[in-house]
Amino acid sequence: MRTLDIIAEKRNGRKLSSESIRALVEGYVQGQIPDYQVSAFLMAVYFRSMDDEETVTLTRAIIDSGVTVDFSGLPSPAVGKHSTGGVGDKTSLIVAPLAASCGMFVPMISGRGLGHTGGTLDKLESIPGFNVNLSLAQFKEQVGGIGCALIGQTAELAPADKKLYALRDVTATVESIPLIVASIISKKVAEGDTGLVLDVKTGSGAFMKTLESSRALAEALVRTGRLLGMEVTALITSMEEPLGHAVGNSVEVVESVEVLRGGGPEDLREVSLALAAEMALLAGKARSLEEAGNILNQKIVAGDALEKFRQIIAAQGGDPRIVDDDQLLPMASHRCEVKAPRKGFVKSILAEPIGKAAMLLGAGRETVEAGIDPAAAVWVRKKTGEEVDAGEPLCTLEFNDDRRLREAIALAESAFALGDSRPDAVRRILERIAAK
Amino acid sequence: MRTLDIIAEKRNGRKLSSESIRALVEGYVQGQIPDYQVSAFLMAVYFRSMDDEETVTLTRAIIDSGVTVDFSGLPSPAVGKHSTGGVGDKTSLIVAPLAASCGMFVPMISGRGLGHTGGTLDKLESIPGFNVNLSLAQFKEQVGGIGCALIGQTAELAPADKKLYALRDVTATVESIPLIVASIISKKVAEGDTGLVLDVKTGSGAFMKTLESSRALAEALVRTGRLLGMEVTALITSMEEPLGHAVGNSVEVVESVEVLRGGGPEDLREVSLALAAEMALLAGKARSLEEAGNILNQKIVAGDALEKFRQIIAAQGGDPRIVDDDQLLPMASHRCEVKAPRKGFVKSILAEPIGKAAMLLGAGRETVEAGIDPAAAVWVRKKTGEEVDAGEPLCTLEFNDDRRLREAIALAESAFALGDSRPDAVRRILERIAAK
Repeated sequence: MRTLDIIAEKRNGRKLSSESIRALVEGYVQGQIPDYQVSAFLMAVYFRSMDDEETVTLTRAIIDSGVTVDFSGLPSPAVGKHSTGGVGDKTSLIVAPLAASCGMFVPMISGRGLGHTGGTLDKLESIPGFNVNLSLAQFKEQVGGIGCALIGQTAELAPADKKLYALRDVTATVESIPLIVASIISKKVAEGDTGLVLDVKTGSGAFMKTLESSRALAEALVRTGRLLGMEVTALITSMEEPLGHAVGNSVEVVESVEVLRGGGPEDLREVSLALAAEMALLAGKARSLEEAGNILNQKIVAGDALEKFRQIIAAQGGDPRIVDDDQLLPMASHRCEVKAPRKGFVKSILAEPIGKAAMLLGAGRETVEAGIDPAAAVWVRKKTGEEVDAGEPLCTLEFNDDRRLREAIALAESAFALGDSRPDAVRRILERIAAK
Repeated sequence: MRTLDIIAEKRNGRKLSSESIRALVEGYVQGQIPDYQVSAFLMAVYFRSMDDEETVTLTRAIIDSGVTVDFSGLPSPAVGKHSTGGVGDKTSLIVAPLAASCGMFVPMISGRGLGHTGGTLDKLESIPGFNVNLSLAQFKEQVGGIGCALIGQTAELAPADKKLYALRDVTATVESIPLIVASIISKKVAEGDTGLVLDVKTGSGAFMKTLESSRALAEALVRTGRLLGMEVTALITSMEEPLGHAVGNSVEVVESVEVLRGGGPEDLREVSLALAAEMALLAGKARSLEEAGNILNQKIVAGDALEKFRQIIAAQGGDPRIVDDDQLLPMASHRCEVKAPRKGFVKSILAEPIGKAAMLLGAGRETVEAGIDPAAAVWVRKKTGEEVDAGEPLCTLEFNDDRRLREAIALAESAFALGDSRPDAVRRILERIAAK
């Protein structure tokens, strides 16, 4: 079948054969099918979607465009974790060492931040010396040795995803469930996971704004992962306000250490422990979520989780002393407070303008090529539901570069809504979708 | 607005601003916007369509990508004619000299054949010496002088259309009414028409298969042309069976001459005269279609129409003697008849397999780059409704190259359906849509 006919078939709402989907992905990766045909195809998929069989074939074709890491020789299943992204979402930095401290094997390949959301790689690189560019052999050895490695996407794993994602990003074809699912699941299968816990964010600060769309994505992820032989659990968690207090890079490392030490913000702790508990269940380390929660708490109290983080940092060339002395992390030279204009209760904090304010200060990037300032940050001082006096700080902006400070302040101010009565408590974990 | 945002707006079903549409067309023509963004945009338009205002802006942007011929100095309005394409559709070869013989000014820029449909340029080039590549200055002078010139698309007129059409052709985005309308109307405005008669084909052999879709296209063409200052009339005509008997290139010239001489197949004569009568009305040469019909018949009977064809051929370097001696046209060296397997009535003749059979014999091209054989042809001997004896010829295949003859015979055979009773007469002109 010619590429033109494959595009027309999908455009007409027909189900594509496995041969057609494979020919398209392979032809694109090999440079035989031009960008302009693939982008038209992706837009047709945006409108017509794909059923589970097509999505699985697409995912499999993307996996087969590169190599797959094999962790089957390990004594327990490799379990991955993926978040669809939010503001202040540093759960990977907590969950990975915590899970590894319980004896789980956690291979973790992460991305960089773009726009108002941060990226795990950028956060890790704020640790002096930390190297996210391990070879696949080093990656595999470190996971087998200390239970966890945290690296960036390599050219060997799912190269078709990299090429397709770059094209989707500039053709308004990112927001398609089968394309999102194929992108996420292909990388997780390629990185060697046999179990996977997904944190699907929902709300105004998330990619998926409504519970319905988040549920549809979570269900498609779970179904597709399962059809490809993984055990998958998804939690749908709230992304109305930023997660925790810290939004930036080094500040998110600081806050992650607080949680690994047994403290930290309540919402961040709750979501992180829930994700780690699901991983423990998939890895066979616990028979119930309650038992898993107990094990995780013991590891935190005993200092094992924090020690595992030190081990990972040291193994990847970073300075493990940052765990005990956050002054060793990059710090911003200036700060500025956004104060409450009146007395009242914080009714809501929009995650997106907070994330964008942090980006404008240098914590994130507007374009893929831009550099970042690891020290730039927004600290959320008052969370939703808290009482505040007029003039009390709502958040603190930390920065070295003040060129876009005014814009950042305006965004941060706009993010907070104050009211006269205490709002209802926010539910952080909204749904659990499991397939086992 | 960034290109990405323009794509996303259209994808989300929003109406695009005039600035956005112009920025897209201009950026694409100037090479600043890549193919892969434009093809995603075109697919979004396929699904979301465009309203009249957007379509007019798109058409105007395409016109403005090149120069526009100005015929406003002529004593009567320049009137164009366009057909959406069918098998055996040689009406341009008849209508252009016929209209010009009545004192109308008929600038006509045509295309080449592709797939199962032929192209006016290929037919004209079967006339020895005929040059379709006039400069715009020559084109304008000839129209002003003898009332008509028949040329191919030039790089100066609507270059954006050429670039957009080539992209649509390989990305399954041809079949979109606003994109079809912008492509047709932009070229007609650029060639200097102030009046336009459209022959929108409908039926199994046409681009638009149903009367509803043909009507939607015709109405959009008429509305858009009118909003751009043209007077436009559309006829919806049947393309169930091939028009006339001749399908090919030189054979279609022969049959056109027959009609200009007052003979020729009834269906071809009816459609050609109806189109020319509409042109006469738009050009102010007649006050009613009846009066227009009388004038046209007089011009045919007096030999003026045929003489105008000789003039045009001579003006463009061709041999005008072909009008009186069709042996001067390329003739195929071989022929082969497809005979009726039984006695009966011709119930239907599918235009598409007949057109494809002619293409396989060399009359058309499968790809844009392919060459053609001007002599290759299919002559339809029996038309729908005619009675036939077993063994009588249904059609004759004429060819020089027999490499795909078997395939062509099979297609020609498959095109004819015979029955026991005479079918109802086919209506050739189904609807008239006028805006004046």
